[in-house]
Amino acid sequence: MSPSIVNVSLGDRAYPIHIGAGVMRDDAWTGQLKGRSAVIVSSPNVAAHYLAQIQSQVTVAAMKVLTVSIADGEAYKSGASLNLIYDTLLENECDRKTVLIALGGGVIGDLTGFAAATYQRGIDFIQIPTTLLAMVDSSVGGKTAINHPRGKNMIGAFHQPVAVLADIDTLATLPDREYRSGLAEVMKYGFIYDAPFLVWLEQNIAKLVARDVDAVIHAVRRSCEIKAEIVVADEREQGIRAWLNLGHTFGHAIETGLGYGKWLHGEAVATGMVMAGQLSAKLGHITQNDVARIQALVEQAGLPTQPPALGAQRYLDLMRIDKKADGGKIRYVILKKLGEAALDAVPDDIVRPLVTI
Amino acid sequence: MSPSIVNVSLGDRAYPIHIGAGVMRDDAWTGQLKGRSAVIVSSPNVAAHYLAQIQSQVTVAAMKVLTVSIADGEAYKSGASLNLIYDTLLENECDRKTVLIALGGGVIGDLTGFAAATYQRGIDFIQIPTTLLAMVDSSVGGKTAINHPRGKNMIGAFHQPVAVLADIDTLATLPDREYRSGLAEVMKYGFIYDAPFLVWLEQNIAKLVARDVDAVIHAVRRSCEIKAEIVVADEREQGIRAWLNLGHTFGHAIETGLGYGKWLHGEAVATGMVMAGQLSAKLGHITQNDVARIQALVEQAGLPTQPPALGAQRYLDLMRIDKKADGGKIRYVILKKLGEAALDAVPDDIVRPLVTI
Repeated sequence: MSPSIVNVSLGDRAYPIHIGAGVMRDDAWTGQLKGRSAVIVSSPNVAAHYLAQIQSQVTVAAMKVLTVSIADGEAYKSGASLNLIYDTLLENECDRKTVLIALGGGVIGDLTGFAAATYQRGIDFIQIPTTLLAMVDSSVGGKTAINHPRGKNMIGAFHQPVAVLADIDTLATLPDREYRSGLAEVMKYGFIYDAPFLVWLEQNIAKLVARDVDAVIHAVRRSCEIKAEIVVADEREQGIRAWLNLGHTFGHAIETGLGYGKWLHGEAVATGMVMAGQLSAKLGHITQNDVARIQALVEQAGLPTQPPALGAQRYLDLMRIDKKADGGKIRYVILKKLGEAALDAVPDDIVRPLVTI
Repeated sequence: MSPSIVNVSLGDRAYPIHIGAGVMRDDAWTGQLKGRSAVIVSSPNVAAHYLAQIQSQVTVAAMKVLTVSIADGEAYKSGASLNLIYDTLLENECDRKTVLIALGGGVIGDLTGFAAATYQRGIDFIQIPTTLLAMVDSSVGGKTAINHPRGKNMIGAFHQPVAVLADIDTLATLPDREYRSGLAEVMKYGFIYDAPFLVWLEQNIAKLVARDVDAVIHAVRRSCEIKAEIVVADEREQGIRAWLNLGHTFGHAIETGLGYGKWLHGEAVATGMVMAGQLSAKLGHITQNDVARIQALVEQAGLPTQPPALGAQRYLDLMRIDKKADGGKIRYVILKKLGEAALDAVPDDIVRPLVTI
């Protein structure tokens, strides 16, 4: 399958996502670096595989090329890492025309994007996501952030990249558990927005798990298209964009309740989506058969469907402090039907049986 | 003169600037704080005069009121001060509906604005400027920033306030040298954009120096209107917004050359505008009589017109590292006539005699 482009149509902040096997090796994207400085931000795991390649391409095009290495892991999506990028930029007298290149997963993308959002009041950045999750989630929508000791993503900005290169080849080096975790976000797009895509996923889940290149390209492209449509409709998350949080309220409770890192984000979201499906059925929106389809797809992706036993009250407490809580009731993303979501404030009494494990 | 409003028409980021004597005491502005947390950021000098007043008004309206005190001075427009604001917000579980209130001069406004730009990817902030410079310059345009040890305003964002209260009464406590320094930016608007306003300034400069309330209100309103027009035409500083830097290339060289704080910003800009006038005359755009008018107005405001003797080469070197340098030639804001500016890259040989002091 030849590479394809998804355009994120955000007016004067519009940008293309190039999707395909080997797109990062196609030198076309480096043209925009001519006469400018480029700073590549990466982490050791990713750099070992791809930094030399990117560096040699960028060196041909850019006026000056620098690299910054950030240690792997969520703990390094921090103010200290941000300062490391600022210091590199300033020590090397990088001006406003400098381009930051984020080569890595979500941590590198969010951190580098936030550095780009704030250096000299905003400079360009190019995102080269190397995980499935980063390709289908953080590469669309311009959310950038760092963590604060008191909370994840507490400091951040909306800042769109000038281009995204989703090179499917980079997924070859991704550990299996991380890859499957990314599939949770892919199927989310089917559940909340696109019933035909959900059917396609049901038919092709075995190929996806086997990382069949054509299937992966299609899944990434359709995911990016859907997220782009939603973000264009609601860039600042006032309405429909909240649908993207399907399974996330339950999922965040699982992640926090177990301690971060025990379950991967996608694993917690996968189980959370099954729970959101059960809640939607309880509210009379979807059938038990629909719930079974959600559960089956999650299972076939090798993702967990059974929530950990944290205790019902603990679940409710954790979900209440989640930022989507609104007054007394907690607001959940629920499914009106397969392929359409909604926000609904649901009384605890209805949710309690679902989290009584 | 009754209070007046200048609207900064930036689409969905439009906001009003309330200008007048006592506007901060009019409770209308606190209505938008209902049901929300408010965090007032101020510095000891300003807080001594106005914090109790603002705090009591905000307490009636807001759900929760917190204050943060940042020490006076440019040195505190820093990452450490920014973290102090973040910590207060997070320790008190402030959500996205929280409103930051910047009560003070340019340092407090820029710092608080940047905290608002980046807390949870952007929250509302209200600006209550208490210096003339902050009223006519930093309250319009949404430039927020902190300094980095390697450069002023190196870390920042564009983030518009939801409202500005320019209360002329607060100028009563402003030291004379700071007040006069603010007048430099006021007259700049006449030089670059509005010949009739320049005539008005020439006729009313004595009243302005004496802080006549009606004259000050008119000067602040016309300055805000002009800056708003320019910013609306060019929010991201791609073109006409650069005119606002009249006198600033020379001025920054003076500030840096003498060591920061020796001359106030407005003093350096005042002299810089005289130099930019002389350069414009040398390039054949304006007459020696025009230069004399610029010089006379600056003098009547009690501002310096004679640049300090740094040596010609030092001036040129300092101006070249200023961020507006472009290739070999340095780009200056020059006057095409009184009331209209332009950007022009001028060879060093033409500038040298002006800085040979």
